[in-house]
Amino acid sequence: MPAPTACLPPIAELRRRLSAAGAHAELIDGVLTAARAPAAEHVFIGAPFDAGARAAARAADALLAAGRAATSLGPLAGLPVTVKDLFDVAGQLTLAGSRLRRDAPRATRDAAAVARLRAAGAAIVGRTNMTEFGYSGVGINPHHGTPRNPCDDDIVRIPGGSSSGAAVSVALGLAVAGLGTDTGGSIRIPAALTGIVGFKNTQRRTPATGAFPLSFTLDTVCSMSRSVADCLLVDGVLAGAPLAVRRREAADLVLALPRTLMLDDLERPVAAAFARALAALGRAGARIVELPFGEFGELAAVTAPAGFSAVEAWATHREAMSTRRAEFDPRVAQRIAPGEGVSATDYIRMHERRRDWIERVSAHFEGIDALVCPTVPMVAPALAPLVESDELFFEANGLLLRNTWPINLLDGCAFSLPCQAPGELPVGLMLAAPGGRDAELAAVALAVEALLARSA
Amino acid sequence: MPAPTACLPPIAELRRRLSAAGAHAELIDGVLTAARAPAAEHVFIGAPFDAGARAAARAADALLAAGRAATSLGPLAGLPVTVKDLFDVAGQLTLAGSRLRRDAPRATRDAAAVARLRAAGAAIVGRTNMTEFGYSGVGINPHHGTPRNPCDDDIVRIPGGSSSGAAVSVALGLAVAGLGTDTGGSIRIPAALTGIVGFKNTQRRTPATGAFPLSFTLDTVCSMSRSVADCLLVDGVLAGAPLAVRRREAADLVLALPRTLMLDDLERPVAAAFARALAALGRAGARIVELPFGEFGELAAVTAPAGFSAVEAWATHREAMSTRRAEFDPRVAQRIAPGEGVSATDYIRMHERRRDWIERVSAHFEGIDALVCPTVPMVAPALAPLVESDELFFEANGLLLRNTWPINLLDGCAFSLPCQAPGELPVGLMLAAPGGRDAELAAVALAVEALLARSA
Repeated sequence: MPAPTACLPPIAELRRRLSAAGAHAELIDGVLTAARAPAAEHVFIGAPFDAGARAAARAADALLAAGRAATSLGPLAGLPVTVKDLFDVAGQLTLAGSRLRRDAPRATRDAAAVARLRAAGAAIVGRTNMTEFGYSGVGINPHHGTPRNPCDDDIVRIPGGSSSGAAVSVALGLAVAGLGTDTGGSIRIPAALTGIVGFKNTQRRTPATGAFPLSFTLDTVCSMSRSVADCLLVDGVLAGAPLAVRRREAADLVLALPRTLMLDDLERPVAAAFARALAALGRAGARIVELPFGEFGELAAVTAPAGFSAVEAWATHREAMSTRRAEFDPRVAQRIAPGEGVSATDYIRMHERRRDWIERVSAHFEGIDALVCPTVPMVAPALAPLVESDELFFEANGLLLRNTWPINLLDGCAFSLPCQAPGELPVGLMLAAPGGRDAELAAVALAVEALLARSA
Repeated sequence: MPAPTACLPPIAELRRRLSAAGAHAELIDGVLTAARAPAAEHVFIGAPFDAGARAAARAADALLAAGRAATSLGPLAGLPVTVKDLFDVAGQLTLAGSRLRRDAPRATRDAAAVARLRAAGAAIVGRTNMTEFGYSGVGINPHHGTPRNPCDDDIVRIPGGSSSGAAVSVALGLAVAGLGTDTGGSIRIPAALTGIVGFKNTQRRTPATGAFPLSFTLDTVCSMSRSVADCLLVDGVLAGAPLAVRRREAADLVLALPRTLMLDDLERPVAAAFARALAALGRAGARIVELPFGEFGELAAVTAPAGFSAVEAWATHREAMSTRRAEFDPRVAQRIAPGEGVSATDYIRMHERRRDWIERVSAHFEGIDALVCPTVPMVAPALAPLVESDELFFEANGLLLRNTWPINLLDGCAFSLPCQAPGELPVGLMLAAPGGRDAELAAVALAVEALLARSA
């Protein structure tokens, strides 16, 4: 039976509530307890950061006790945040969901994103589970277990990935935001499947220093939260400067429905929820235009012979793939392997074709506020069959990534917003735009989110 | 016998002088005549752009005649500018100094840099000669001839390259600026050897759209002029926004002399001119500190197995290298060939090592305004022996590029300023800084240029 998510209140509301003496410490104590409850099994890799999280909470409480205005604290002061296992945290091992990195040296300093979260006052609660090296959209991890999708009490469903634990940590109320990465959909897919908001900002907004790479060409550091506003707050912290977002009404929006690929073969609950969302947008006066976006039919040709992730992951893991292949998740190794034997010429030409493709796709956005489509064409599938069958796993993985990864290839930005009705399994609605249009897209996302809340 | 360069007056002075009726048209007529004089043989590929250049000059004259203030015209209105043969000009062939591209399609639009020069009012005089595909620092072109270095009346000396014609066009007074590219020194080397100023800005300041690539990782679009101020004016046009340069005095500067590589084996005239320049800086109160810069000893290791230019040029020319190799300059083909067989992994690791190297080198610039060294360790060598002997050619080429290309690897910015005494062959003094510090470096270059002028 679909279960409602138990997200924390929006950050702005939470901060207003946390003015009582010791309120941040109490919140964090509750989170650290809940992080050890059965529902949170496999959400974290390693133990929660009790001491550090409590220290950040006490610091926020102490500042308030000393008379500092709540508004003068860091934007995440004393609030629980989780970080995906691939981010360096000074003094810790960065496993990136693997067994292979157990003997790697400990990080000597925080990843840039982690340092910025800390500087904003965040109480970092722990390292969240992920697909090994970030290399699938399913979220299954054979080494560290797979977090259960909290949106169904009966059937054990996948959380989506690769930022599986990050999404579940937000959906369970263990964090106001989960720091993740999105190389082909790794923030938006688990956000869609667990019913929260995922934001993949334009890659160059956030430094990737200290984040273990899958594809440095595509890897984007950003977060999941319970709302667009909360995602924007975290984006501002990660980028070092908040976006200047002007308010827009749904009635003014022009949204493009792509005729190619992204609306194919939608599972019935996805098609229904998406159609209701479009109808609500139409009633509100938004203009929905159909555009061919035929370039979405060229994806395989643009990234032949092997895709950026495979080629770049092979460069990262070549030695380990030769000498320690048995220690990889076999499904991850199978995706890295095609990177072998690709020449520099092939790889450079992939980049050249990508630049040309980006130029052609971006041209369609003239006069369009955002592309709109379902984030993933399915609701979260049951876990067990995908653990059992490689065939079902790779089929599901292809579908999960289908709509999201073209936006990474575009060097674009995108939000996934929940659009299911109460009592239904989560369905994500994706809004996407070319790179650098984050502020404009954020205005669209805020308007659509508000409309969906009204029409729910 | 060394001959003085015949540069046009500085742009600011030239614009003041051009207020008489028809003065721009007269200037351009003179330039177009001089472009056909024996001294300018091989400076251009193809005929000068008589009609277009005259139209731009007449447009400037017409605006002045209509009462427009000179200061309200475009910053290059009616002034002669040349463009290196690798830039697209709508309707023309972009040969990039080759024979291979004789059957390429004509450009359908101007390169971004050319379009910006035009929008600033420039009278584009013609396409300047270059090393084939930009791939050497010598400036010899077996297909289109080699422009003679105008700084010596007796011995025929090389102009330097790859932007050979661009430099000579400025040194002969055929242009206030020569649009060039600098992948390993291709602006700074010919500027140094012909006694003018060369500026390689930080790559990302200027779009490379419509410029035939050598190495898209390193190619930088910028210009040569007779002064730092003129280079900065053109940089502002090319970048779409001028640098905000504050005035500095030589007495306040801290300059770093690298102990590794860049001061090795200087030819006597270079050592003497450089020593005089340092002495003048010292007398003026500048602080010159010696720093190890040991990373300049790692260049070969960082770019193994083949260097960015070879790998990326191979990706561009793979088919032609297989089927039409005899049409390449054999010395260019010999430099492209090592790009064959490089794997994507090797190439990706070159990028990773480069990023690490940039970080380490940049750290040395804490508290340092600029690195200072000779641009090239020699004065312009005689042409004939380098035409005759591959061995001498490659030896000279290695020395010509030795000090400049580490700044491309650094993703940095640099000026070459003439520092020889009157009556001597040109010697370039290079000032360099990490990427993005263009405005700060420009302030240093203006101060050093003024000091050298006073102490000449």
